[in-house]
Amino acid sequence: MSLTDLPPGGARAVARCDALAVAPFSDMQGGLFRAYLTPAYAAAQEVVAGWMERAGMQVRRDTAANLVGRYEGALGHAPALVIGSHLDSVRDGGAYDGPLGIMLGIEAIAALNAQGRRLPFPIEVYAFGDEEGSRFPAAMLTSRAVAGTLDAAALDIADAAGVTLAEALASTRDYLAAARAPGATLAYLEAHIEQGPVLEAEGLAVGTVTGIAAQRRYAVTVGGMAGHAGTTAMRLRRDPLAGAAAMVLAVEQVARGDDSDVVATVGMIEARPGAPNVIPGEVRFTIDVRSGAEDRRDRAAKAILARIVEIADARGLDCAVERIHDLAASPCDPALMDMMDAALAAAGQPVRRLVSGAGHDAMNMAALCPTAMLFIRCRDGISHNPAEHVDAADAEIALRVMLGFVERLGESCAS
Amino acid sequence: MSLTDLPPGGARAVARCDALAVAPFSDMQGGLFRAYLTPAYAAAQEVVAGWMERAGMQVRRDTAANLVGRYEGALGHAPALVIGSHLDSVRDGGAYDGPLGIMLGIEAIAALNAQGRRLPFPIEVYAFGDEEGSRFPAAMLTSRAVAGTLDAAALDIADAAGVTLAEALASTRDYLAAARAPGATLAYLEAHIEQGPVLEAEGLAVGTVTGIAAQRRYAVTVGGMAGHAGTTAMRLRRDPLAGAAAMVLAVEQVARGDDSDVVATVGMIEARPGAPNVIPGEVRFTIDVRSGAEDRRDRAAKAILARIVEIADARGLDCAVERIHDLAASPCDPALMDMMDAALAAAGQPVRRLVSGAGHDAMNMAALCPTAMLFIRCRDGISHNPAEHVDAADAEIALRVMLGFVERLGESCAS
Repeated sequence: MSLTDLPPGGARAVARCDALAVAPFSDMQGGLFRAYLTPAYAAAQEVVAGWMERAGMQVRRDTAANLVGRYEGALGHAPALVIGSHLDSVRDGGAYDGPLGIMLGIEAIAALNAQGRRLPFPIEVYAFGDEEGSRFPAAMLTSRAVAGTLDAAALDIADAAGVTLAEALASTRDYLAAARAPGATLAYLEAHIEQGPVLEAEGLAVGTVTGIAAQRRYAVTVGGMAGHAGTTAMRLRRDPLAGAAAMVLAVEQVARGDDSDVVATVGMIEARPGAPNVIPGEVRFTIDVRSGAEDRRDRAAKAILARIVEIADARGLDCAVERIHDLAASPCDPALMDMMDAALAAAGQPVRRLVSGAGHDAMNMAALCPTAMLFIRCRDGISHNPAEHVDAADAEIALRVMLGFVERLGESCAS
Repeated sequence: MSLTDLPPGGARAVARCDALAVAPFSDMQGGLFRAYLTPAYAAAQEVVAGWMERAGMQVRRDTAANLVGRYEGALGHAPALVIGSHLDSVRDGGAYDGPLGIMLGIEAIAALNAQGRRLPFPIEVYAFGDEEGSRFPAAMLTSRAVAGTLDAAALDIADAAGVTLAEALASTRDYLAAARAPGATLAYLEAHIEQGPVLEAEGLAVGTVTGIAAQRRYAVTVGGMAGHAGTTAMRLRRDPLAGAAAMVLAVEQVARGDDSDVVATVGMIEARPGAPNVIPGEVRFTIDVRSGAEDRRDRAAKAILARIVEIADARGLDCAVERIHDLAASPCDPALMDMMDAALAAAGQPVRRLVSGAGHDAMNMAALCPTAMLFIRCRDGISHNPAEHVDAADAEIALRVMLGFVERLGESCAS
């Protein structure tokens, strides 16, 4: 590929992400869709393996079909720094969500290799295969396998075509053998686009991530009395959609009122039977609540649920709330955050810490080792969308911060 | 059928509706679905034709495939009183919505015929074929054909299987020839279940209908900014679902606040893309506004739209409102309403007038002649549902009121 001829650096990392966003690295016409263990996935691995090799790494595929490039350290058997992110995408996704973190890892190694520089520890760059859960009804299969937290039952899950994970692998090797040995990992570093508007709103290129937010998700069902829209007098109605509307506003009010990093979202709503001339009999909607701190998340969730019960009672509606998702917060390591802040400052960047509202492979790797994350500004906060955009200049800043972080980690090992 | 052996009257009318709610008069297993020009429709016509004949009527099918029974009057060529309702149903509908008005018409003729009684005018009982629009993407085809207001283009509309109305008729006869000749119709009388809870709430068996409500329907599209539910801070959001929720509440507030017969309903809502972890980018919903008086409907609609614009502006949301349906009010004839009131009183019933929020064949027949409607209580106001229920005693009261109405119409012709 001609991309080999580009000068190393952040711009090349961005250009390589762009190159990977089209066929044969996408299985979708006119957009990017690269799911785990698909033809596009294999094609992308092939090319990325070449880039890893040319950066000075030894490349292997682990039993979970992750691509791993290793750059030896000064000491042969020291625990490794793992730099990782994911190679898969959502359907009609953006070019940078995932791949940019891998490409920046490769650029960091290329820079070290160009200087003949060896750290006290080896560095392994992981291109994780499944973070998005685009193919199988589970997400982050591969970082869970590497962290050693995946259950063997996962091999039996099937994609929409009925192909199981075990069949898709076309390998008899033990999937769970992808787990890194205890004590073999010094730390995990992941650079990722922010996928939100905070850095952009503050004019910042990058920021230190404090951790992955605690998430909780609910499915709410509000039951009333269906009726004819023309023949049911207003005073005789028990309209679950009017009740749900009040609840949607309560979700917003509680999260805004918390005046913290709490976010709460109703993303899906359905009124049944769903005809313009029928008062609905039932409405279902989801609530997603997150915060960097579990106690703040829980406080907000509790307040929201209390308001929902209040509203249902006041309107004589039935209401059932089911908790469908609960994820503890995954804080980044305090000492590594300090190193990241120092690297930011050394790169001439204002130091800004922010929580990640989205989940990332880092939250699985936290079971294995201390983790650090660097967020990179993306335009309009847009992600999971073809309009996803990252400035090459921001990627260059991120690369310098990552190198500064690696430098400081090396110093801390030496001392 | 054994139903022939039942004594004439309201109970038989109800029992016949029940008999027509199952196969072969329904094309659906375990429920009632009888669409226009289907096998179930043909089977039902066959049986109803027999009931009409036994009640003393001459039976024909007009060119729109309506079944028409004629009971001659004392004067051969006088304009006829038409008593009508519809034989078709919605999918998984109730037994009485439509058929009960036909059966009561047949019972009224049976009662007159049993007494050898002739009115100064002939009476024709119409079993209309299509009121619900269950098969073709248009409603009330057959009463529009009879009233002479249907456009010939209607013959080209096709059902879900691609069969056009012209093909389904399997007849080369001119559909529009179903139109009744000008001056051939003295009046139109339709008895129908209320399909709402008003009569039941007031403990009344029947009520005089003042007319069909003016309807207006809107499609509202609210545009905001889609985003990641976890990464977009509350203050940076432009959430169209939160805006739509405020609008849904405004619809309810305006209609309630009018403290009249105005009803307003949001029956359908959709958030796109519609995932629990995505702030929607666009929300669509419908508004249905009705009142017996056009000025009240228009005032409410105007107030609702003003609130919607206000809410969109305050939240920085885009908003587009499209009027997708507009139906003028179709008032019943004042003199006929007085006759109906008198017939109610003579039957020992409290006189109660109420508007019909739902459309009925009567609103089309109004183009042809003065119209009158009688509403019959149905349990819990439920309709378009297998749980639809009418008490035989209420049907008997309705029959007596209809006979009283016919009596008074006869007297008014004689005088």
